[in-house]
Amino acid sequence: MSQPYSRVFNFSAGPCTLPVSALEEARDGMLNWNGSGMSVMEMSHRGKVYEGIFSETEANLRKLLGIPENYKILFLQGGASFQNTMIPMNYLREGQTADYVVSGAWGKKSQEAAKLIGNVHTAFDGKAGNYNDVPDLESLQYSDDPAYIHFTTNETIHGVEIASDPSLKAPVVCDMSSDILSRPVDISKYALIYAGAQKNMGPAGVTVVIIRDDLVAKVPEKQHPMMDYKLMVENDSMYNTPPCWGIYVCGLVYKWVIAQGGLAAMNKLAKDRSSLIYEAVEASGGFYKGHALPASRSIMNVTFTLGSDELTDKFIKEAKAEKLDGLKGHRSVGGCRASIYNAFPVEGCQVLANFMEDFAAKNG
Amino acid sequence: MSQPYSRVFNFSAGPCTLPVSALEEARDGMLNWNGSGMSVMEMSHRGKVYEGIFSETEANLRKLLGIPENYKILFLQGGASFQNTMIPMNYLREGQTADYVVSGAWGKKSQEAAKLIGNVHTAFDGKAGNYNDVPDLESLQYSDDPAYIHFTTNETIHGVEIASDPSLKAPVVCDMSSDILSRPVDISKYALIYAGAQKNMGPAGVTVVIIRDDLVAKVPEKQHPMMDYKLMVENDSMYNTPPCWGIYVCGLVYKWVIAQGGLAAMNKLAKDRSSLIYEAVEASGGFYKGHALPASRSIMNVTFTLGSDELTDKFIKEAKAEKLDGLKGHRSVGGCRASIYNAFPVEGCQVLANFMEDFAAKNG
Repeated sequence: MSQPYSRVFNFSAGPCTLPVSALEEARDGMLNWNGSGMSVMEMSHRGKVYEGIFSETEANLRKLLGIPENYKILFLQGGASFQNTMIPMNYLREGQTADYVVSGAWGKKSQEAAKLIGNVHTAFDGKAGNYNDVPDLESLQYSDDPAYIHFTTNETIHGVEIASDPSLKAPVVCDMSSDILSRPVDISKYALIYAGAQKNMGPAGVTVVIIRDDLVAKVPEKQHPMMDYKLMVENDSMYNTPPCWGIYVCGLVYKWVIAQGGLAAMNKLAKDRSSLIYEAVEASGGFYKGHALPASRSIMNVTFTLGSDELTDKFIKEAKAEKLDGLKGHRSVGGCRASIYNAFPVEGCQVLANFMEDFAAKNG
Repeated sequence: MSQPYSRVFNFSAGPCTLPVSALEEARDGMLNWNGSGMSVMEMSHRGKVYEGIFSETEANLRKLLGIPENYKILFLQGGASFQNTMIPMNYLREGQTADYVVSGAWGKKSQEAAKLIGNVHTAFDGKAGNYNDVPDLESLQYSDDPAYIHFTTNETIHGVEIASDPSLKAPVVCDMSSDILSRPVDISKYALIYAGAQKNMGPAGVTVVIIRDDLVAKVPEKQHPMMDYKLMVENDSMYNTPPCWGIYVCGLVYKWVIAQGGLAAMNKLAKDRSSLIYEAVEASGGFYKGHALPASRSIMNVTFTLGSDELTDKFIKEAKAEKLDGLKGHRSVGGCRASIYNAFPVEGCQVLANFMEDFAAKNG
């Protein structure tokens, strides 16, 4: 199967595949965007042309996720990692405790960053099973009156996912970096959602924050400017120069998602993609072993192992020769990982599933 | 004079004009970079292909600026504004004082951010002359044994520039956002240099930090990860996902600068560009008034005023009709500002100078 522009099937965990139509539009406007006489990379962020791009991008994200009016949208820098510090720096005060649900490497990183700032209670840690399982968030024991409860919807390294919006009594803070826009979300269940763009939204270097008004108001006095959500909201993400190009590309992706039918359509595609690979794992009679327990399986990152490191290396090498790229798993799980975000073509998963079947038959 | 691709002459203060050849290369690789089968925006930052782009970019910057081996180069997020907090958070301890030279709006912003963290001594503040003047850094009175001395080489809003490398007894920390790569620099005079990319280097969303090894070693224990220079150095700017695309475009710009003859050539071009406009100001017999005093004039941002707001508006409107874009000055100076960074074509300054002469003749 030939891909447009001789592209490969790119299974990278992020940055990752973007929609071909978005890339074509980015290419076509590179020297002179829409008659403006300049590239989007060259536009003043304070000018009317870029302002139009920015506000359309924001409005489309609001529409896609159904973000209520009492939430603000920010486009920041620093990635989810920076949010891991910015959140407790604003909302974890002395004498308070923040609860962290650790269902994988990213939840762990968030928790570690918060520990440098204040008291942390670990409400769940899936370490014993090497993070192959996610908890039922509504049944966990939380501390009394926590400042907030933090969890990570999708763990890219381990391939487990919490794909529901919990009803909890404390403010819910959520890292949705790797599955945002892959299903409809009930935003009202959350106080703050953050997501690095480089999985389902655009290039690396943009972080989306969706923050409820009461949290904006709660920023402490004399906060450092670049860590001050209130300042960011007051300046509509332009206290300083934003990552203009990245936001523009996110906007192209949002338009593509809308054209595909929105988040319900994205969710169906994600289930179709991941099912093809999970079924290939199951049909292999043990040649491939899935890392995540079935009920915790991610529809964004499929993790599986083979019988030996040699076999894994051979698999990855032969897959690459078939233009199936980026399948090496993270060292903490080993084996393989197929990251299949929104823009990943379904046919690429069929090609991988066929390859897996052939490879198992030849090497089983 | 017709520009390629019907582009305008873009006098924006940043983001701003990039080299046409860099934009063409960015465009041409958009769907499939160099046979990799993917866009640079889609590449894993941990993969060999991107690693090659990153290390070539870093090496070219080191070569261009002649950065000695005892300095590390970082490509971070957050802009110069984030550095304004990160620097004192790492190097301004209790009981210490940091000295700030305030020669414009950006120096002021740096100083304000530091005041939230520790003791600050203002070694110079050009406020009385509305920042039309820069001091001789080697003659200023500094505090005893300051943690560091901070200054801003070029003030984009006021159009004044300190274009020399001072010999000072304390560690020198410098914001070079808006004139980096416009002249050869003696890096050894500095402890830490930082610069947002969106003037002379590339798109917004990348911040270059050049940091001497002894400062890397001095990062306090238990620093927040995203504010920890040591962690950033240890991870070669990839503690988390870097702004990959922006770094790639910086690399294209570095290659262009090298092809033009390096920093001496950039300096000559900058002087040629700015002279054309300063001469038009002076030849106008007072119709245009330069804001900066002659000895403090920036070769990157030329600020000048006209006799009234009405005349200014008319000038900007008629200039825009001639494809001379982005000439409106900042409200704190008023009038006009021509930002003419490295990639700005010299002929655009000639066109502006001619326009200024005509406009003065018609409206004087």
